[in-house]
Amino acid sequence: MIVTLKKGIKKKEIAVLSEKIKALGCRPYVVKGKDVTIIGVIGEYAKKHKEVFETMDMVEHISEIQKPYKLASREFKKENTVIKINKNVEIGGKRIHVIAGPCAIESEDLMIRTAKMVKDAGATVIRGGAFKPRSSPYAFQGLGEKGLKYIKESGKKLCMPTVSEAMTIEQVNLLSKYCDIIQIGARNIQNYDLLKAAGEQKKPVLLKRGLATTVKELLLSAEYILSRGNSNVMLCERGIRTFEDSTRFTMDLNAIPVLKKLTHLPLILDPSHGIGIREHIGAMAKACVAVGADGLIIEVHPRPEEALSDGPQSLFPSQFKILMEELNLIAKAVDRELLA
Amino acid sequence: MIVTLKKGIKKKEIAVLSEKIKALGCRPYVVKGKDVTIIGVIGEYAKKHKEVFETMDMVEHISEIQKPYKLASREFKKENTVIKINKNVEIGGKRIHVIAGPCAIESEDLMIRTAKMVKDAGATVIRGGAFKPRSSPYAFQGLGEKGLKYIKESGKKLCMPTVSEAMTIEQVNLLSKYCDIIQIGARNIQNYDLLKAAGEQKKPVLLKRGLATTVKELLLSAEYILSRGNSNVMLCERGIRTFEDSTRFTMDLNAIPVLKKLTHLPLILDPSHGIGIREHIGAMAKACVAVGADGLIIEVHPRPEEALSDGPQSLFPSQFKILMEELNLIAKAVDRELLA
Amino acid sequence: MIVTLKKGIKKKEIAVLSEKIKALGCRPYVVKGKDVTIIGVIGEYAKKHKEVFETMDMVEHISEIQKPYKLASREFKKENTVIKINKNVEIGGKRIHVIAGPCAIESEDLMIRTAKMVKDAGATVIRGGAFKPRSSPYAFQGLGEKGLKYIKESGKKLCMPTVSEAMTIEQVNLLSKYCDIIQIGARNIQNYDLLKAAGEQKKPVLLKRGLATTVKELLLSAEYILSRGNSNVMLCERGIRTFEDSTRFTMDLNAIPVLKKLTHLPLILDPSHGIGIREHIGAMAKACVAVGADGLIIEVHPRPEEALSDGPQSLFPSQFKILMEELNLIAKAVDRELLA
Amino acid sequence: MIVTLKKGIKKKEIAVLSEKIKALGCRPYVVKGKDVTIIGVIGEYAKKHKEVFETMDMVEHISEIQKPYKLASREFKKENTVIKINKNVEIGGKRIHVIAGPCAIESEDLMIRTAKMVKDAGATVIRGGAFKPRSSPYAFQGLGEKGLKYIKESGKKLCMPTVSEAMTIEQVNLLSKYCDIIQIGARNIQNYDLLKAAGEQKKPVLLKRGLATTVKELLLSAEYILSRGNSNVMLCERGIRTFEDSTRFTMDLNAIPVLKKLTHLPLILDPSHGIGIREHIGAMAKACVAVGADGLIIEVHPRPEEALSDGPQSLFPSQFKILMEELNLIAKAVDRELLA
Repeated sequence: MIVTLKKGIKKKEIAVLSEKIKALGCRPYVVKGKDVTIIGVIGEYAKKHKEVFETMDMVEHISEIQKPYKLASREFKKENTVIKINKNVEIGGKRIHVIAGPCAIESEDLMIRTAKMVKDAGATVIRGGAFKPRSSPYAFQGLGEKGLKYIKESGKKLCMPTVSEAMTIEQVNLLSKYCDIIQIGARNIQNYDLLKAAGEQKKPVLLKRGLATTVKELLLSAEYILSRGNSNVMLCERGIRTFEDSTRFTMDLNAIPVLKKLTHLPLILDPSHGIGIREHIGAMAKACVAVGADGLIIEVHPRPEEALSDGPQSLFPSQFKILMEELNLIAKAVDRELLA
Repeated sequence: MIVTLKKGIKKKEIAVLSEKIKALGCRPYVVKGKDVTIIGVIGEYAKKHKEVFETMDMVEHISEIQKPYKLASREFKKENTVIKINKNVEIGGKRIHVIAGPCAIESEDLMIRTAKMVKDAGATVIRGGAFKPRSSPYAFQGLGEKGLKYIKESGKKLCMPTVSEAMTIEQVNLLSKYCDIIQIGARNIQNYDLLKAAGEQKKPVLLKRGLATTVKELLLSAEYILSRGNSNVMLCERGIRTFEDSTRFTMDLNAIPVLKKLTHLPLILDPSHGIGIREHIGAMAKACVAVGADGLIIEVHPRPEEALSDGPQSLFPSQFKILMEELNLIAKAVDRELLA
Repeated sequence: MIVTLKKGIKKKEIAVLSEKIKALGCRPYVVKGKDVTIIGVIGEYAKKHKEVFETMDMVEHISEIQKPYKLASREFKKENTVIKINKNVEIGGKRIHVIAGPCAIESEDLMIRTAKMVKDAGATVIRGGAFKPRSSPYAFQGLGEKGLKYIKESGKKLCMPTVSEAMTIEQVNLLSKYCDIIQIGARNIQNYDLLKAAGEQKKPVLLKRGLATTVKELLLSAEYILSRGNSNVMLCERGIRTFEDSTRFTMDLNAIPVLKKLTHLPLILDPSHGIGIREHIGAMAKACVAVGADGLIIEVHPRPEEALSDGPQSLFPSQFKILMEELNLIAKAVDRELLA
Repeated sequence: MIVTLKKGIKKKEIAVLSEKIKALGCRPYVVKGKDVTIIGVIGEYAKKHKEVFETMDMVEHISEIQKPYKLASREFKKENTVIKINKNVEIGGKRIHVIAGPCAIESEDLMIRTAKMVKDAGATVIRGGAFKPRSSPYAFQGLGEKGLKYIKESGKKLCMPTVSEAMTIEQVNLLSKYCDIIQIGARNIQNYDLLKAAGEQKKPVLLKRGLATTVKELLLSAEYILSRGNSNVMLCERGIRTFEDSTRFTMDLNAIPVLKKLTHLPLILDPSHGIGIREHIGAMAKACVAVGADGLIIEVHPRPEEALSDGPQSLFPSQFKILMEELNLIAKAVDRELLA
């Protein structure tokens, strides 16, 4: 049972309530976000005591959700969550937004040039990694804060919101100053303190499924963020690991209708990482739109062959432009829109 | 190196040629189809002797294809293979054909009623299993030849070609009399004598990828059929096995653009088995059309809840009708057509 | 519910019984082996009618096994099945038997030489493929019946039972004349007519798990054989497909204790195919003995580098000899024996 | 190319060297540990300049290792690494050490009682989680620092070294005060800043493979720790994700001989998480010893049915005692020892 407390609740009141929960033979699990405090009442017979809580003044809402994830579930919230990034970009509504840009931010010039190109093609959010998670410690690991300045500057110039990845709590805080959306990458899908930090700040979060994360675990990881008070979470499918070796990963589009049923959160799809082969990204992107994506994230680089990271899966700007037109047709066919 | 011999070649000539190949230090691998005889010249230095064969009268064609599959490869044949099933149905061309019907043929009445329903909705081929591969020996295993009579009758009445699955060589021969397309199921993807039998007869073959079959292995299995002289092979993706358990299988749409590049054979997609959950089949079917399918195969049953096999993944006829309209819109968006 | 009928039951009696089952609202599923006839009474309320069958003269045994596999389950038979191959070799008892030999039978001389070498090292059964399932139609596919003659001759000379693989019903019948154990390979794990044929003859069957076969499905495939009257089935784990690419397959030793609990059938392990890399087979073989194998099957070739099939995973005879001594020590440590 | 610099190297010298590397057309990658500084010389033609570095005074060692992981590879260090935990416990030598204890530290009393029991049975290191990574934010997440005090106290009383898991950089620093070995869990296998933090402190690290981590990636993650100056890293296989659902995970013993060849680091195996079913842990533990483990980590709880975490995979102390005797026999059979 999940008990959501009213705003402005005092520490002392929570302590009293916790004691009461223990007295009922249950275990209180207090999650304090900046604005919202939730108490999970954990225990085999928790449900029996529902009415005890219903009559309490400090209680805002009680949820008896059966699923292990609560706030992420359709039972908790029936309508699709629409996340307002800025006045032009709302993710989760009728329009499918395309996030595009280079894998890594390499220079200010490259960032701005790429941003212009993808904007021209119809992208509404720019991406670029300043902190790069790389399997090898000897590989290029990103420009760091300098990169964030470049992407911020690019966003400003082109009036586009920005997204970049955080791998540490410190980076979450840094990114919340520089970017409009904070990405938590596949490798950190169960880095719980990072998820909590993302839940404690106010910027929307793009949460990527890990290579061996089940749909249920993905929702539980989202729950870590939601339960800290940040309700602006987008889920992102970007390929899972299977036996097949003719593609970099196996993009799991099956997860999309399943997730659409289980959760109200917007779903972003990443065909660039998902299939990982430039010439096949277009076909997968089309499938993503058809299957029900609320957004796409696509790697574009002016000169993919010179990219410091993920070159083989970055589109040429000219390819991207044509693809956007094609995607728009499919979006219309499924009663969505992609280009303004 | 693959040497294709001219038609009408005599056994004795083949024997002479084989000896010659051995004399060159290579191993001859003779594959005799009903009309075509191919000799694989296997050996580390086979290529060096290319000119020896080029000058031979009995030689039709020499192929130095690097890939382990030869006849299935784009290198062997650049243009898409279009398979003419009857005068109305050509698979692999601009029109995306939808094959539909019950999982198992249960009765003549049911077969005909379902066929009518799916034809009304726009399907052009009817499916129905007479021999059912079931994991348990105690489960319903199909009506056998009686079922084939029912589906043939239904096809005749509705002027629609038919497809059903063969699990044995005997069934291949039986099916070649009753049906227009012979399906080789996922469980028999590496049942090589069955593949050879399918290659020795003339009806088109629908070859389904196994649950752990790589793209490369799928093409090698197709090669078994092709190398026996039957060039009318359609490949079918129907879900692979992964760790994810929220869907029955994980449909691998990534394989479609990869296969489109590697092979000239038409690609059919089976969202019913692929995701295995009725309410999500529609979303996957849309993705299939968008990603580049040449055809779909979908299970439809007038009363899925009473189906003897695969009820939970069979669509209601009313659902199917609506879905076909939706798929048609996507087909147009990718410059194909689905409804006549 | 599984009703086993007494021997000598007549066709007419079965027909009568079947009608009775239908009259009770159930579906009869008659599986006739050569000696045993079993009727599966399928239906939601089958159990309710148990006493009807208990009082029938023709009924030998009634089983209310919950598991989808019946005859293969520990509930059906508590004690381990011990399969007597000849007077020296009993598989499933205290002694762990090692089956060894080349992947493919290449010549009579090679077969006999290898058999001698592996016998000297302590192997008790010889293996060798006459019909080779190969992914490519252009690869060496075995010597066929000639190969069977060689292995039979080798077995005779060395007083060792033999095992070889059948891929078709015809080959099952052929092998039942030449060999002592018939292997059904991983690719044919769900080739149900082949399984039925293996169940209709009397030679013990070595049934290999497929690359994506679950433990439950493996037992259901064994059930196909058992339900036809052949109770001498050995199960073989030989590696499954996973994302890991540093080994050929991922040998799943976890399945051994799980299977030991679920079934009474002997378990053979195949580290050669399982890990697929010569230098690592020894370590895996040791783990196989420790985890509870009743037997091992190992590829040995006098000159692996010249083998026509699977050379890179074949042991040198000298390696095999040392390994057998090492395995014997582990066998003793787990209260089994491996060398006589 | 990896250039290891001499101790005491100055910042300025590194800067000069970095410039030199750039002037050669390469990219310098400086990794500063507390004691050791390594410069990765990254670039297509890096090798050509080897002699430039060989003549430099500040250079300790140059490595031209082809593998993407360098310090972790057998090429870098031929002999097995033996990690001295205290005067009694050296991991990686002839003796196989068994780490045992509850999944989570639940109370001081429970911790000490369990430690006594496992010590009596022959375990040499105690384990217990103070910070628990849980898929659900509402599940018990450990006692935190209080738990660390309990495990430290238990270790002291019983003269046993201790291991516990860190999920954040802060926890790494805390654990380095309380415990003798710091565990990095499967979920954090690619949490690179955590790995770097583990590499910056001096306590040995137990690094667990993730559910979809390849052998190569595991070694690259170890490289993150090693390259920061901490050479005491143990690798731990604890089960990967596959399609098989009859066990919690699929323990990949194949990885052990593969890793033994590729790396000099000790290998610990975790059959408790690996198979995840109490009654099957014993069989897997035996296989672990046979396959070449340098240590085991096993969950033991006085009352598994009451455990706050992972009860179903915790052994009863009585089971553990018997298992240790059995494992000792196998250890001897593979020329190792397990009990003193």
